[in-house]
Amino acid sequence: MNTGLQNLKFKIQNLKWAISFIAFLSLCQTALAQKAEWVWYPGDYEIWLSNQMQNRRTERGVFFPVFWKIDNHYPLIDFHKVFELTEPEEVEIYVQGQYNVKLDGKAFEGYPRKITVPAGKHKINIKVFNQAQVPAIFVRGKKIVSDSTWLVTFEDKEWIDETGKTSDVSTTKWMNAGMWNFYDPKQLPSDFKLPVKPAEAATSTKESGGTLIDFGKETFGYIKLHNLKGRGKLAIYYGESREEALDTAHTETYDKLNIDQTGGDYTVDLSKAFRFVNIIADAGISFDKASMLYEYADLQDKGGFKCNDEEINKIYDVAKYTFHLSTKEFFIDGIKRDRWVWSGDAYQSYLMNYYLTNDNGTVKRTTLSLRGKDPVTSHINTIMDYTLYWFLGVYDYYLYSGDAAFVKDNYDRMKSLMAYVLGRRNKDGLLEGLPGDWVFIDWAEGLSKQGAVSFEQLLFARSLETMALVADLVQEKEDAGMYAGLAKDVKKKLFDLYWNEQKQAIVHSYVNGKPTDHVTRYANMFAIFFDYLSDAQKKNIKNTVLLNNSVPPITTPYMRFYEMEALCALGEQNYVTKEMKSYWGGMLKLGATSFWEEYNPKKSGAEHYAMYGRKYGKSLCHAWGASPLYLLGKYYLGVKPTGAGYSTYTIEPALGGLKWMEGKVPTPAGNIELYCSTNNIKVSSPVGTGKLVLKSKKAPSSKEGSFVNKGNNVYELTLEKDKKYEIKYQAL
Amino acid sequence: MNTGLQNLKFKIQNLKWAISFIAFLSLCQTALAQKAEWVWYPGDYEIWLSNQMQNRRTERGVFFPVFWKIDNHYPLIDFHKVFELTEPEEVEIYVQGQYNVKLDGKAFEGYPRKITVPAGKHKINIKVFNQAQVPAIFVRGKKIVSDSTWLVTFEDKEWIDETGKTSDVSTTKWMNAGMWNFYDPKQLPSDFKLPVKPAEAATSTKESGGTLIDFGKETFGYIKLHNLKGRGKLAIYYGESREEALDTAHTETYDKLNIDQTGGDYTVDLSKAFRFVNIIADAGISFDKASMLYEYADLQDKGGFKCNDEEINKIYDVAKYTFHLSTKEFFIDGIKRDRWVWSGDAYQSYLMNYYLTNDNGTVKRTTLSLRGKDPVTSHINTIMDYTLYWFLGVYDYYLYSGDAAFVKDNYDRMKSLMAYVLGRRNKDGLLEGLPGDWVFIDWAEGLSKQGAVSFEQLLFARSLETMALVADLVQEKEDAGMYAGLAKDVKKKLFDLYWNEQKQAIVHSYVNGKPTDHVTRYANMFAIFFDYLSDAQKKNIKNTVLLNNSVPPITTPYMRFYEMEALCALGEQNYVTKEMKSYWGGMLKLGATSFWEEYNPKKSGAEHYAMYGRKYGKSLCHAWGASPLYLLGKYYLGVKPTGAGYSTYTIEPALGGLKWMEGKVPTPAGNIELYCSTNNIKVSSPVGTGKLVLKSKKAPSSKEGSFVNKGNNVYELTLEKDKKYEIKYQAL
Repeated sequence: MNTGLQNLKFKIQNLKWAISFIAFLSLCQTALAQKAEWVWYPGDYEIWLSNQMQNRRTERGVFFPVFWKIDNHYPLIDFHKVFELTEPEEVEIYVQGQYNVKLDGKAFEGYPRKITVPAGKHKINIKVFNQAQVPAIFVRGKKIVSDSTWLVTFEDKEWIDETGKTSDVSTTKWMNAGMWNFYDPKQLPSDFKLPVKPAEAATSTKESGGTLIDFGKETFGYIKLHNLKGRGKLAIYYGESREEALDTAHTETYDKLNIDQTGGDYTVDLSKAFRFVNIIADAGISFDKASMLYEYADLQDKGGFKCNDEEINKIYDVAKYTFHLSTKEFFIDGIKRDRWVWSGDAYQSYLMNYYLTNDNGTVKRTTLSLRGKDPVTSHINTIMDYTLYWFLGVYDYYLYSGDAAFVKDNYDRMKSLMAYVLGRRNKDGLLEGLPGDWVFIDWAEGLSKQGAVSFEQLLFARSLETMALVADLVQEKEDAGMYAGLAKDVKKKLFDLYWNEQKQAIVHSYVNGKPTDHVTRYANMFAIFFDYLSDAQKKNIKNTVLLNNSVPPITTPYMRFYEMEALCALGEQNYVTKEMKSYWGGMLKLGATSFWEEYNPKKSGAEHYAMYGRKYGKSLCHAWGASPLYLLGKYYLGVKPTGAGYSTYTIEPALGGLKWMEGKVPTPAGNIELYCSTNNIKVSSPVGTGKLVLKSKKAPSSKEGSFVNKGNNVYELTLEKDKKYEIKYQAL
Repeated sequence: MNTGLQNLKFKIQNLKWAISFIAFLSLCQTALAQKAEWVWYPGDYEIWLSNQMQNRRTERGVFFPVFWKIDNHYPLIDFHKVFELTEPEEVEIYVQGQYNVKLDGKAFEGYPRKITVPAGKHKINIKVFNQAQVPAIFVRGKKIVSDSTWLVTFEDKEWIDETGKTSDVSTTKWMNAGMWNFYDPKQLPSDFKLPVKPAEAATSTKESGGTLIDFGKETFGYIKLHNLKGRGKLAIYYGESREEALDTAHTETYDKLNIDQTGGDYTVDLSKAFRFVNIIADAGISFDKASMLYEYADLQDKGGFKCNDEEINKIYDVAKYTFHLSTKEFFIDGIKRDRWVWSGDAYQSYLMNYYLTNDNGTVKRTTLSLRGKDPVTSHINTIMDYTLYWFLGVYDYYLYSGDAAFVKDNYDRMKSLMAYVLGRRNKDGLLEGLPGDWVFIDWAEGLSKQGAVSFEQLLFARSLETMALVADLVQEKEDAGMYAGLAKDVKKKLFDLYWNEQKQAIVHSYVNGKPTDHVTRYANMFAIFFDYLSDAQKKNIKNTVLLNNSVPPITTPYMRFYEMEALCALGEQNYVTKEMKSYWGGMLKLGATSFWEEYNPKKSGAEHYAMYGRKYGKSLCHAWGASPLYLLGKYYLGVKPTGAGYSTYTIEPALGGLKWMEGKVPTPAGNIELYCSTNNIKVSSPVGTGKLVLKSKKAPSSKEGSFVNKGNNVYELTLEKDKKYEIKYQAL
């Protein structure tokens, strides 16, 4: 059995590399330091912005905010940096809030918009108070510019004693400023809005007293009515399905407007999700047409996938569209509802992002907004598993991005969240739902949440490993040892208490001091791709659990994600290809233009739209439906980092029954590119040192480098940076 | 030696009384429940408002915010209450923020301003999101009205599972809503401003290119220029002294305005402290006159004091004025600067308040705003002693007001603050300044802050006693025992480690495992009125410390407050009367119209105005200068509660050399009234059971009740509620 800490080997093996990578990043930072941008206290803008975004949910005209604690920014922030100038320079200052500016501790009168800084070494402080928005500054001189190298604090402790002497600031904690590429001083951070672009409807028809407009596919944005005239009431009923738009008594979202216009265009206030809209207006109200403003996060696709199977290509494309629709300022769950940041959903978006858009910004913003502020009073989103996914997200972010600076800055927030978790263990040291905790796992009828569920312990163990990893990065050796010890202990318990030798599976839960004998898929799946099992255990679980129809099936794309991942990790790509075609392909056959929150092939017609006891409660565009993005990148193209930021990585292509495939996987340094057929492979990488692992009937050949025969038809080739490899082999 | 816990006896003895008092209060609440008012999450508005107030400080045109962490409100709050209606009623709803309204869990569409609630038992929920201001509601029906009986939370945990069922809210923490007598639905809490009234200048003269205006006494508000005409620059230099207003290069506050007016009045934006203003304008700018809008907190005087000595009467009046000027939305330190809420300063204002205005609201608001929010990252105002005064303030508030509800609601905040304090003890279990801690004690040259200062341990012990008291009130028996034990331990150490048998005094500090042999007044004074000493120790300290000129003198009115209190507690009123006349009388002789931050009789002329290395750095109106209000009430009239809310109390009049005095001391039920000459006393009380303690040459006589001879010329009479007592005696 592998130990989980072996999974952490990327930390140790690649420390040297990580250090040079940090040096490289800091060089970049210096090079970029000339570009001024808005900066703030890290996490504060992210929390503020997610509050704005998450409170845009409505349900049948009712404002529907989240039910967990939302935090607030620090209203008073001190920003500073020391500069060394060879010549004097004039510096422009833009501030969101009430402020003062000090040069070497001496304040300028009033609220200066421009100051002159003489040559020499100087410290600039700007202190900003803003209760309503996040205190933010934009400073632009020649050399003096605001960026993330400025230091910030919410507590500067600059007291003076009776002689006028300033005093002990030795424990003031300075953080690197937060930012998000806002380079325009006139564009205030609090005014930020996602971009929009106009889009036309596909069809417009008169239906039962209204106008039914079809935009041809699931979409998101603001309805715009052209040349609107008249006076009276106008209602817009939104539908992800035709049925929903027409069923005005049950449609999930609508706008009811009071119109008094004599022409011109009218755009609704609040963006919504829809494919159809049904517009019902009082007599005397008219409009020429309805179009929309499509609202989106402007992320570019870096990764890609294409193969000989057009259905798989279509699944990949619809997954891409689903992912883009569900990516706004942050990774959200779905676009009709909840438009909230849910940690479990976001965790899957992170993974898909690494294989498609590879946008670190959205991962970091989502991570910060989910974490919120101390004190921790509840699990993230009130869900125990969602707190734990948050740690896993940090682990993966470091692995995929190599961004040690962010995870290190994050360590204090990790520590206090973990302290909360550790404070909620039961007498066996296991996580068991306490009053007020939501143990979610999955939407599945009759799923027991009683006692200490094995699935939660699995996430707990990996969370503790993440703590050990980051403690090590910030050189808190004592912490690192403590967390590693705790992780080891939880993992040991997982096998001592939950492993059923007879069933050759991890059982679902441990209740009143005894393991149950009920087996579910959850813990078993995760144990496989966490690599917590021996090869023998894995093989057995495949048959006793994953391919065993008597174990309750998974019905949500959410957990299908992990089920498919586990099967891929066991080399069952052929099986997964079939499942993908039947499950995701099944949705496509029903006309899905984005993937759903839940899909049960046994249902038919409008039954598919119901959930939560509501006729159209189900979201038809849910991020967790887009998992093929991840599966095809990680387990078909087979590309995965093994060292932080792809300092080392593995490529283990698996066609899963396809004839050929080609694709790109983004890394911090650019794309790894791969073409793979049953006898031919082309691969190149701009980063790190890779290991190409092939199963071939005969020894493969490559012009560059040479394969090592690992036995059992497995061959390995070391891949060097920036070289192109063309390989002949014969797929097993 | 008395134990400190004996001081807490009011808690035990009067528990029954307290319970009936709570029942009485809750009856009042029911009776008042028909009056609708704005409500919010308790503490949030107080924090928000103090942020606004404290960021009104400027120094020579520079915005000067606080240097400690300021907190923020919860942006998302759920309000609810269950009502039982005999008939349906219409309910108006006013909200600050974006909101929804639910009746028995079912939401109304949109943002209803009026709803109808049917007869029967119903639960109303209002959920409000507001990032910029504090979420607040005002609800007014016949029976359904918003008030502090509504329950609020920042985390309702109303999640639903896949069947649509709402889930575990068992651990949701509901608090009683906060409020501040805002009865007008159109007057939004965020728009609150202190009232103002116009006031005229005393004189106006031309001086060196400007107009010098004298308002006749220290005051506070907005300068108003009448019939202002012209275009150009106009500067207003504010002076607490004539010198400051004229010395434009050093005046502490000013306004520099750009004028472009053709008449009409102009009022400046920001209120300021001044007696004089010096207005210097460009040629061509003219105004008819300058007046002011006096800004004040509308608190009524309830207590009072008058005696045969006109100088003492004048001191009392100027102290009253100083106190009123320094009381705004919160108790602040001083009106020129800092206009901040400082815990040590506020603590003294609380005590003065109990003898003058007895306004619970300002005490509670100040307490909440000082406490801020978790996590605690620093001492209150960064000062160790100021954290500890905060606990003392809670102790006294309970003693004087009997308001158990507030201190009980406050318990969680007390606990987390004390956890911070306990986490900062040194290896001896003593409080010693750690890096970043400001050990203040007093403004005094050369005062050592090294090691564990005895003064801090004294405050620490009383703070722990406060914790034990409140833990007991909230029936956290285990906590109560723990805190009482800790208090006992700190007190024991105080005497084991700091008591110098030879010097018969508590020494100043304990450094590197050894007591120093330096004696200062601080700990010795507090030990007296905390009643931590035996009678013999007290008597010795009076001579070895308090009346010993070789012990460094106190120079601030801040510590004079406690020095005078200690002397009074030792029966040295005659001495204190002389000190009062020389020290406070000394300031009056220099023309003071309010009492100062610091007074050193050895200085002369404008030297008096300097502090912090600045010519006019000293505040000439500082709350801590007003202590005669407290001394005369508590130690001359001699009225003090011994049970919570004056359930029991003592009156021990001491003329201190005066021929006669008369006065009123407010209690929760009205005023205790007292007249006292050397042979005649009249007293009545509307509350509790009192003990009149007299020193008399012969047995006193009273028509009501009878005196008990306690020996040594001390006689005691039990005072019953609502009776008038006239007593003949012969003062010793």
